[in-house]
Amino acid sequence: GFAKIDVQRVKRKGFPEVIYGEGKTAEQIQAIFSRLMTHHETVLATRISKEKAEQLVPQLVHVTYDECSRTLLYDERKSFRSYGKVGVLCAGTSDLPVAEEAAITAQAMGLEIARFYDIGVAGIHRLFDQLEQIRTCDVLIVVAGMEGALVSVVGGLVQQPILAVPTSIGYGASFHGVAALLTMLNSCASGVSVVNIDNGFGAAYQAALISRIKKE
Amino acid sequence: GFAKIDVQRVKRKGFPEVIYGEGKTAEQIQAIFSRLMTHHETVLATRISKEKAEQLVPQLVHVTYDECSRTLLYDERKSFRSYGKVGVLCAGTSDLPVAEEAAITAQAMGLEIARFYDIGVAGIHRLFDQLEQIRTCDVLIVVAGMEGALVSVVGGLVQQPILAVPTSIGYGASFHGVAALLTMLNSCASGVSVVNIDNGFGAAYQAALISRIKKE
Amino acid sequence: GFAKIDVQRVKRKGFPEVIYGEGKTAEQIQAIFSRLMTHHETVLATRISKEKAEQLVPQLVHVTYDECSRTLLYDERKSFRSYGKVGVLCAGTSDLPVAEEAAITAQAMGLEIARFYDIGVAGIHRLFDQLEQIRTCDVLIVVAGMEGALVSVVGGLVQQPILAVPTSIGYGASFHGVAALLTMLNSCASGVSVVNIDNGFGAAYQAALISRIKKE
Amino acid sequence: GFAKIDVQRVKRKGFPEVIYGEGKTAEQIQAIFSRLMTHHETVLATRISKEKAEQLVPQLVHVTYDECSRTLLYDERKSFRSYGKVGVLCAGTSDLPVAEEAAITAQAMGLEIARFYDIGVAGIHRLFDQLEQIRTCDVLIVVAGMEGALVSVVGGLVQQPILAVPTSIGYGASFHGVAALLTMLNSCASGVSVVNIDNGFGAAYQAALISRIKKE
Amino acid sequence: GFAKIDVQRVKRKGFPEVIYGEGKTAEQIQAIFSRLMTHHETVLATRISKEKAEQLVPQLVHVTYDECSRTLLYDERKSFRSYGKVGVLCAGTSDLPVAEEAAITAQAMGLEIARFYDIGVAGIHRLFDQLEQIRTCDVLIVVAGMEGALVSVVGGLVQQPILAVPTSIGYGASFHGVAALLTMLNSCASGVSVVNIDNGFGAAYQAALISRIKKE
Amino acid sequence: GFAKIDVQRVKRKGFPEVIYGEGKTAEQIQAIFSRLMTHHETVLATRISKEKAEQLVPQLVHVTYDECSRTLLYDERKSFRSYGKVGVLCAGTSDLPVAEEAAITAQAMGLEIARFYDIGVAGIHRLFDQLEQIRTCDVLIVVAGMEGALVSVVGGLVQQPILAVPTSIGYGASFHGVAALLTMLNSCASGVSVVNIDNGFGAAYQAALISRIKKE
Amino acid sequence: GFAKIDVQRVKRKGFPEVIYGEGKTAEQIQAIFSRLMTHHETVLATRISKEKAEQLVPQLVHVTYDECSRTLLYDERKSFRSYGKVGVLCAGTSDLPVAEEAAITAQAMGLEIARFYDIGVAGIHRLFDQLEQIRTCDVLIVVAGMEGALVSVVGGLVQQPILAVPTSIGYGASFHGVAALLTMLNSCASGVSVVNIDNGFGAAYQAALISRIKKE
Amino acid sequence: GFAKIDVQRVKRKGFPEVIYGEGKTAEQIQAIFSRLMTHHETVLATRISKEKAEQLVPQLVHVTYDECSRTLLYDERKSFRSYGKVGVLCAGTSDLPVAEEAAITAQAMGLEIARFYDIGVAGIHRLFDQLEQIRTCDVLIVVAGMEGALVSVVGGLVQQPILAVPTSIGYGASFHGVAALLTMLNSCASGVSVVNIDNGFGAAYQAALISRIKKE
Ligand SMILES: Nc1ncnc2c1ncn2[C@@H]1O[C@H](COP(=O)(O)O)[C@@H](O)[C@H]1O
Ligand SMILES: Nc1ncnc2c1ncn2[C@@H]1O[C@H](COP(=O)(O)O)[C@@H](O)[C@H]1O
Ligand SMILES: Nc1ncnc2c1ncn2[C@@H]1O[C@H](COP(=O)(O)O)[C@@H](O)[C@H]1O
Ligand SMILES: Nc1ncnc2c1ncn2[C@@H]1O[C@H](COP(=O)(O)O)[C@@H](O)[C@H]1O
Ligand SMILES: [Mg+2]
Ligand SMILES: [Mg+2]
Ligand SMILES: [Mg+2]
Ligand SMILES: [Mg+2]
Ligand SMILES: [Mg+2]
Ligand SMILES: [Mg+2]
Ligand SMILES: [Mg+2]
Ligand SMILES: [Mg+2]
Repeated sequence: GFAKIDVQRVKRKGFPEVIYGEGKTAEQIQAIFSRLMTHHETVLATRISKEKAEQLVPQLVHVTYDECSRTLLYDERKSFRSYGKVGVLCAGTSDLPVAEEAAITAQAMGLEIARFYDIGVAGIHRLFDQLEQIRTCDVLIVVAGMEGALVSVVGGLVQQPILAVPTSIGYGASFHGVAALLTMLNSCASGVSVVNIDNGFGAAYQAALISRIKKE
Repeated sequence: GFAKIDVQRVKRKGFPEVIYGEGKTAEQIQAIFSRLMTHHETVLATRISKEKAEQLVPQLVHVTYDECSRTLLYDERKSFRSYGKVGVLCAGTSDLPVAEEAAITAQAMGLEIARFYDIGVAGIHRLFDQLEQIRTCDVLIVVAGMEGALVSVVGGLVQQPILAVPTSIGYGASFHGVAALLTMLNSCASGVSVVNIDNGFGAAYQAALISRIKKE
Repeated sequence: GFAKIDVQRVKRKGFPEVIYGEGKTAEQIQAIFSRLMTHHETVLATRISKEKAEQLVPQLVHVTYDECSRTLLYDERKSFRSYGKVGVLCAGTSDLPVAEEAAITAQAMGLEIARFYDIGVAGIHRLFDQLEQIRTCDVLIVVAGMEGALVSVVGGLVQQPILAVPTSIGYGASFHGVAALLTMLNSCASGVSVVNIDNGFGAAYQAALISRIKKE
Repeated sequence: GFAKIDVQRVKRKGFPEVIYGEGKTAEQIQAIFSRLMTHHETVLATRISKEKAEQLVPQLVHVTYDECSRTLLYDERKSFRSYGKVGVLCAGTSDLPVAEEAAITAQAMGLEIARFYDIGVAGIHRLFDQLEQIRTCDVLIVVAGMEGALVSVVGGLVQQPILAVPTSIGYGASFHGVAALLTMLNSCASGVSVVNIDNGFGAAYQAALISRIKKE
Repeated sequence: GFAKIDVQRVKRKGFPEVIYGEGKTAEQIQAIFSRLMTHHETVLATRISKEKAEQLVPQLVHVTYDECSRTLLYDERKSFRSYGKVGVLCAGTSDLPVAEEAAITAQAMGLEIARFYDIGVAGIHRLFDQLEQIRTCDVLIVVAGMEGALVSVVGGLVQQPILAVPTSIGYGASFHGVAALLTMLNSCASGVSVVNIDNGFGAAYQAALISRIKKE
Repeated sequence: GFAKIDVQRVKRKGFPEVIYGEGKTAEQIQAIFSRLMTHHETVLATRISKEKAEQLVPQLVHVTYDECSRTLLYDERKSFRSYGKVGVLCAGTSDLPVAEEAAITAQAMGLEIARFYDIGVAGIHRLFDQLEQIRTCDVLIVVAGMEGALVSVVGGLVQQPILAVPTSIGYGASFHGVAALLTMLNSCASGVSVVNIDNGFGAAYQAALISRIKKE
Repeated sequence: GFAKIDVQRVKRKGFPEVIYGEGKTAEQIQAIFSRLMTHHETVLATRISKEKAEQLVPQLVHVTYDECSRTLLYDERKSFRSYGKVGVLCAGTSDLPVAEEAAITAQAMGLEIARFYDIGVAGIHRLFDQLEQIRTCDVLIVVAGMEGALVSVVGGLVQQPILAVPTSIGYGASFHGVAALLTMLNSCASGVSVVNIDNGFGAAYQAALISRIKKE
Repeated sequence: GFAKIDVQRVKRKGFPEVIYGEGKTAEQIQAIFSRLMTHHETVLATRISKEKAEQLVPQLVHVTYDECSRTLLYDERKSFRSYGKVGVLCAGTSDLPVAEEAAITAQAMGLEIARFYDIGVAGIHRLFDQLEQIRTCDVLIVVAGMEGALVSVVGGLVQQPILAVPTSIGYGASFHGVAALLTMLNSCASGVSVVNIDNGFGAAYQAALISRIKKE
């Protein structure tokens, strides 16, 4: 058929396949989603528009749609075994959808979430106020658009590995996230690695793999 | 003076400051290096050309220069406490200097190293031959130039977090590493985060932070 | 008039002119299409939107519109003489429209088609499962978006010439297909040549020219 | 060791591994070259500088260095079985090194070569004068720098598959071959596929795979 | 007010100001247009959408709107004194709007127009068929998208100065006209100068200035 | 041989072939140059380094080497018939080599030259001081690096067609001439067309074609 | 909550936080706006679309919406203490929205405004006519799209610091403001510093900080 | 001659012309420098290599060469009237040459200098330690390479206008200063304007114009 579902993925990667909703019809998503539901107790789909969600939610029992993060989640885990705590930091209010894509994904993958939002460096005291809390996490996801300087500042202050997520927030010479991406790749702070622009999902996935090391 | 040595860094980040040798004179490097030697039992400098090394080695006791990785290391640790095992993979022979910068840095930061070199996807059996060994590591650093496809292939096969290092190896439309960088940022495999082109040091540093989580 | 139909093309190139529908009105397409129908037993138009197709199909007898590939085909060949077999491979479900543009074009030009879809390297066993089949083809068209790594992996395993088609599938640093394009141009595997982003038509045309060599 | 020689490549791809000399020391090249000589009757190395060649030629018996194409060839084939005839066309005198890299590689891989040099479109009669000869080839390699228009013109006139090689010849807005690369990717003529800037080797390899189809 | 009309322009440049319609409201255009009508016997506005034209035509007496070129023209010249003949060539049907912007502008500026449309190099005989006619012009405007090779071919064949206009026609690696722009800037043919992507107006203006030299 | 001399060019274009020296050996240049000397009374070679010139001048009788413009000229015209007067303007002292390449080429092609150097807009009175003189020319070549604003200012003031030459002078965000190139392509002044970065030769050639119109 | 209002900003920066409306819902803007109204006598929001304004104006007493600049202003200052006079210059009519964003912001921050609009270099006398007036200002904001040459010309003539604002006005090779941005960064005139494309707000803010120096 | 010295510049801009040494021969520099010495009591040349300085210093009396900033200064001011105090901040040791170009220029233009070097955000306490001192300045010049985050952090903390100077320090995806440039143009902190990459001179010039406002 049009899709070869990779049911062995949970064996190879530790988590079942996650559906990337962009560029798939609601029909295609439903077909893949329900097939995954027969194999796993958690199924996640990202980049699901509100329109598609309205078609899908009535047809897939026990799923929840979250509008901000644009995710569709089926979660029938009996008990929640935490693999660690991830801090999700973001610079401004407009970065929220990406931050929440990361948070929901991380949660689905067994992490506890601590949110630290709207703490960009234009008012740096907002970061320092929360530094103690931030330092209690195992891994940090730092989400920022425009010039993305938050990553370097946090990176200079903590021992946690940082997964940096540039966002496409900004205009003009931000070039849809390229400015933030370059900032993060060139960070003068150590302990920073970077995922694609707006890829909250990818950062959370990496955070989950990292946290599993601890628990092994 | 010309440099403000950040002696508190070991407290904040878990490791002392590492000297970036490019754009500093041998005199400047010597001054900073010897000051750091009075505070720490391990001191590392990267991007040290052979010429500078010839000036520096006679003047700094107990340091070793490694020509391939272009690193200068002072290592007076009494005992070696391993924080974990990092696998360093590279696609081709020309990626070796970057892979070795990663390996030497990781070792200086308390990691055991397993090397898997010249296993690019043009002869993919070379990767499969070593997959069992690769899966015994805690974290993987995957170094590749040209089109950097090795990252996606490894990423599809293992549960370890992957730190991807694009190299500037290639010509024409490789644009000095940009092609490999884009490949890695857009990898269809999950559990991949990326550092700057040729930044073996940065990948190793992140690997060390990740491994520490395990040992905490 | 507005268009100078190149009726000699079948002589020079072996195939009649193919209409590129983008940027032409339905009226213009109909005029050119029906004129070509008077000269040739196969007429193909690509990049035909659903809207235009709805105008055109009732007016052009014996034509078929395919929504996925967005092609309009008139095919009155009495017998089908096969010039060879082309394998069309694609990495993910979203690459389908480009893969199908290639498939339909190739078929119109006298090739047998074998489809190998959704076999991206995130689950590489899906490729190995079909390798024997793939090796029975004369030429391969490999279609992939995001980081496009599938091309290099296939290229390392087969003797068939590969026509690589980057797609605009992806987001952020995929830059509308540029990441996949660069991957393919820099492939470490030999026997790969590349066409424009999303140009399924171009790859199929080249496959047809290549296959004709065999039959000469 | 530093290199894992891929002796199975001749099985998988039909040709033994070819050594890419750039970024390897003369010592490394010699080691790999002599090992390949024990397995195969043809061994080729490309991108060999004159300096390295002067070190290598005395040490590797029966090898020939060609300064223009910068290739080192060991060729002990008893008889030459031709797989087909490739036409190598180039636009200007400065494209010669790339054209010759293609020609020497193609020859090493069992093709007959017909050269059509300095026939750029500024004096297009030079192309028309040779069109009959060009049409006797099985495959064409078209090499051009600056704006690379030769590819489109030839592509409009012949039935042979064209492998287009942009070169880095030019200045200013040629951006080291990017202008020619884009021209070739966007060619309005069909039956054109493209390899990396200056990649004469890659075009010849593809030409050889294509020609083999004919002979199978 | 919002605009400082430059009534001295006809003195300095030989032609009155031309209104660039994009980004101006119908009201603003009307105000400027009618003020210019009180000073000059020819007034031209370019980049006028159909919507704006429907508002403007009833309110400005004696003006003509041309939908293809998107121009609005007021032309009360008693007699037409020709300053020369400009040939407008274009490669494909989709380049027509740009070619017609050039043609209408040139005509408004006192040139005779000869049109040579859809003569792209994929069917180069269409160009040769008209070469005699083309050589009777004083100046040539060559309009082409995709890879823009037509400019180099014409440039190799004629003595007329060529004003090259890249168009944004194409997809993928045409980058909205950048590929054609680079082709034209790097043309191996001499006697070519280039204007902005889609700038038919600018080419015609330059053609008019050039033609005036002749008549002085 | 390695070059197909295009002796018909003077018929097609009005001027004999001009040798582009970059990327050719002194031997190749000498061979082509002397062959052209047997056909034409003027022979020009551009981009000739001082080193090559020292080899060539003793061997080619009656040639002159100009170090600033890096041109080699053989000029045996009995009488000088002027086709018109070209003004060569440049913004700063560093643009001189490009301006002189234009001037020497124009002269070789039968134009009178008026030089207006170092009149950049940082001291705009220097331009106004010479405006009367500038207006006596038939065509203008305006050479500028950095931001290239001189073109727009001159373009607003004169009726002459302007051939704009961006130079690679500048640093940082000038991107080796790209900033000046974009300025000139987007000039708000009309009557400007553009040649490649540093292409003084191309501007002069176009000026000569334009001037010929006048004299026909 | 979703936003951490930075009430200390007026202490640190001299002005209260300004709301950036893009990417915020009307609800979010209203919440932040009304909270800021309880602390400050001036509150400004930029990038407010007409649609959002229609929702907001009825709900926020004493606010004014300006459609051209897309700003929402609450201004309850008892007396207006001028910190200086800023000249806002723009090149063309289409640059008005950016120029007005600068003007309204500057006014809200306590500056007197002098407007000099539509004075681009295509008709440079319009600038010279107003030079005396321009020289009476303390700081200048120069707004220009297309090639942005106005900045260099003004910069050569005045002693005032110039804040250059590139706009996204233009097409083709203007690349949405990049051409103007590069022009301004490479200006041959001194005393020019640059803000982001279309960032009228940022230029006005900087003008206000500069003017405060005078008044201290 | 080759240069038109702009002796009126001190009248128009408040400072005499400054010589840009790059791309000028020592002879040209000497000629211009000595002519300026006859008109002004301060003469400055920037971008003077050590080699040129060794030629120039013996021939120009009373000039000082500074190797770090690569400036040549003639300063015969009887008394030093300070126009204000500029703080020059830089992120790392490698930014020193650019920072010193700014400092020496500012001093030549009548500013007092306070230096704050090596205070990048990887060790942000180094910035906070000096914040009180920094706040005593009138204007700030912030120099940073790599990701340039220092600008945003300082910008969030102070009321001084900031002139941001990106440097070309870095590698890989820093693209010779482009990453830092984009960071600074997109800074989330207000009161930041930007000059060209490595343009210490330009920032100092702007700082001087700004400071003059205060003293008027
Ligand atoms: N938001 C996202 N961004 C990037 N990758 C994703 C995202 N959501 C899911 N994926 C990955 O995309 C792949 C699904 O691709 P497909 O087979 O086209 O559904 C899965 O392997 C996921 O790991
Ligand atoms: N999808 C496509 N992509 C690229 N080229 C195409 C496509 N479909 C048709 N063509 C080519 O476009 C040309 C038609 O251009 P036109 O004369 O504008 O119709 C033909 O020569 C076709 O070979
Ligand atoms: N299509 C066009 N492309 C580029 N420039 C144009 C075009 N149409 C008119 N212009 C020029 O744009 C200028 C008008 O700008 P404005 O003052 O904003 O109306 C005039 O000087 C015209 O010469
Ligand atoms: N038009 C604008 N362009 C750039 N920045 C702005 C603009 N308007 C407001 N800002 C800044 O954006 C910040 C608000 O960001 P946020 O916290 O997301 O509302 C404030 O610090 C403002 O100084
Ligand atoms: Mg899938
Ligand atoms: Mg330091
Ligand atoms: Mg056609
Ligand atoms: Mg190998
Ligand atoms: Mg106007
Ligand atoms: Mg030639
Ligand atoms: Mg905020
Ligand atoms: Mg000067």
